Amino acid sequence: MVGKTIEEARIMETIPLVIAGFGNVGRAFYTMLEDKAQDLEKNYGLRFEVRLIAKSNGCHETRTGSLGLRNISRNGRPWLEGNPSWHPGLTIPEALRRMPEGGCLVECTPSDLKTGQPGYDDIRAAFESGWSAVTAEKGALVVGYRKLHEMAAARGLGFGLSGATAAALPTIDVARISIAGAKIESIQGILNGTSNYLLTRMSEGLDYAESLRDAQSKGIAEPDPSYDVNGWDTAAKILILANACLNTDYSMSDVLVKGIADIEPAFLQEKRLEGNSVKLMATASPRRRGPGWRLEVMPSVIDSSHPLFHVDGTEKGITFYTDSMGAITVTGGRSNPRGAAAALLKDLINICRGMHL
Amino acid sequence: MVGKTIEEARIMETIPLVIAGFGNVGRAFYTMLEDKAQDLEKNYGLRFEVRLIAKSNGCHETRTGSLGLRNISRNGRPWLEGNPSWHPGLTIPEALRRMPEGGCLVECTPSDLKTGQPGYDDIRAAFESGWSAVTAEKGALVVGYRKLHEMAAARGLGFGLSGATAAALPTIDVARISIAGAKIESIQGILNGTSNYLLTRMSEGLDYAESLRDAQSKGIAEPDPSYDVNGWDTAAKILILANACLNTDYSMSDVLVKGIADIEPAFLQEKRLEGNSVKLMATASPRRRGPGWRLEVMPSVIDSSHPLFHVDGTEKGITFYTDSMGAITVTGGRSNPRGAAAALLKDLINICRGMHL
Repeated sequence: MVGKTIEEARIMETIPLVIAGFGNVGRAFYTMLEDKAQDLEKNYGLRFEVRLIAKSNGCHETRTGSLGLRNISRNGRPWLEGNPSWHPGLTIPEALRRMPEGGCLVECTPSDLKTGQPGYDDIRAAFESGWSAVTAEKGALVVGYRKLHEMAAARGLGFGLSGATAAALPTIDVARISIAGAKIESIQGILNGTSNYLLTRMSEGLDYAESLRDAQSKGIAEPDPSYDVNGWDTAAKILILANACLNTDYSMSDVLVKGIADIEPAFLQEKRLEGNSVKLMATASPRRRGPGWRLEVMPSVIDSSHPLFHVDGTEKGITFYTDSMGAITVTGGRSNPRGAAAALLKDLINICRGMHL
Repeated sequence: MVGKTIEEARIMETIPLVIAGFGNVGRAFYTMLEDKAQDLEKNYGLRFEVRLIAKSNGCHETRTGSLGLRNISRNGRPWLEGNPSWHPGLTIPEALRRMPEGGCLVECTPSDLKTGQPGYDDIRAAFESGWSAVTAEKGALVVGYRKLHEMAAARGLGFGLSGATAAALPTIDVARISIAGAKIESIQGILNGTSNYLLTRMSEGLDYAESLRDAQSKGIAEPDPSYDVNGWDTAAKILILANACLNTDYSMSDVLVKGIADIEPAFLQEKRLEGNSVKLMATASPRRRGPGWRLEVMPSVIDSSHPLFHVDGTEKGITFYTDSMGAITVTGGRSNPRGAAAALLKDLINICRGMHL
């Protein structure tokens, strides 16, 4: 039961990092790391060195201290040819094999929900190289969470998923730490901001096409919103949450999914007038017959006593129903790349503090 | 960055416990420990042995394995005279000095907000004896949180406060773990179920005396409700939260406190008709001038966009406003002795897993 003393905790650690994917989330993470460098040293005794940034066609890599943005760009553009840090064609698994143990992979590449690539191979290579990993991407987790978790656990390495479940909304650490010892009886969540925003707008009187145009004009919905409105994003999240918090090993085909695209606005308005609300609800609950869990994503009518009734617009929320603590609900948290970056950083800090499970 | 491997984590630890105070919370904790013994072994590899239970006039103690309820009671009554486990006049500090290192004190005695006793001396004795401590009582924390925290940290021991801040509502571990790396810009909370219930009832049309009688008849309000309605319970909680989450060292005299006893029901009803709500709000926010924090407990009018607007009746809630994650709100959690016991058990598990800060 003895942890680090103050003196031990004060010894500065320098942790090498590899950032896989340098899109919105990867960049937001990099910027946050620079902005918060002093706070991280002061509050946690942690110093991070970005040794490698991977793009789809190669990697920027340095073996001498941290990789600054000036090493990879001139005037904000990537500087490839003739740049001593640029290694065309180099992949994350290859690069990780050259590195000494003890760093952390920050996985931000958009990965495929069917194959889990390229995230799955990146994360596996990290664990094989004695590195921990934090990820903002769902593909690798949807395809192989259990296997990756076991690899990390067997090696005593950290594996952080917070950024992949609902950006800055705390989910997995609440389940594992804040309600430790309580038995989770079921989980309900509003986990997709786009579909929740559309439902809110439609309940206010807009039709589906108007709501979607509004959401797209505000950058809330993608040009192709099908992944969000058909429920697949929510399904991936409840699947990951169930496997991580309930110790299960389900796959996407185990999730019953119904989206919101064919809901009539008149139905939403009618429910609203009755004092109820319609939400795209993700649920993990015990199967009625036999052991195991039922995972489903379904538009659901809830009344004002439901703890997620007031989660409107792009907001998200999750409720854990437990035996000894009652219902615990968490709402809020930024949904944008900065929110996802903050979730990656949170997991990274907790892994470095030895708080991984 | 290397934690326990699965094999290391599977080795069963037996942790000796001392329970100080055997009122509602102490008994609920004891019962929960018995009910969950198998789950604790299976899920966390932890086995607990209650070696001592302290009452105001002495201790039940065994040095041979766990102290079962049959050792301290016959037919549900305490069995004192002639009971080999009963040591009249023995105090917690004396008893802890005899014990080997490595256990955890579970502090459940009602302690005085002015002196912090007897909790303060109990917890100090635990740390001096190489024991960790979890507490459900506010007195010791209000009087000497910083000193006790530093004692624990210097020795690498755990110090869990969750049970003392808002029973099962997660507060401190959200601040320390779920939003690690984010800067807390301010904290707001509805932290007292009794006063929130009275405000809800009065806004519905009851006067203060009727609301109080209703709350008392339901066991929500104490026969003397002054500690709750005058804001002192809320003040103690925001003080503890500030000192624990913002790294400050304030005392009760630093908290500006105004209760709810002289609020006119007509005012509450008027605000309600306007679509607003009045809450006894605890706030920790940066001082307008100079460094440091302003702590206050004050009836506050909030509108429906406030994340705690819908926290009605006996429910509690807390919002952390942060730089990188936005606003994170937690609501719910049982307020009764079972909720407090679950919070003690949560802290105990996390300390045993090495997750104390």
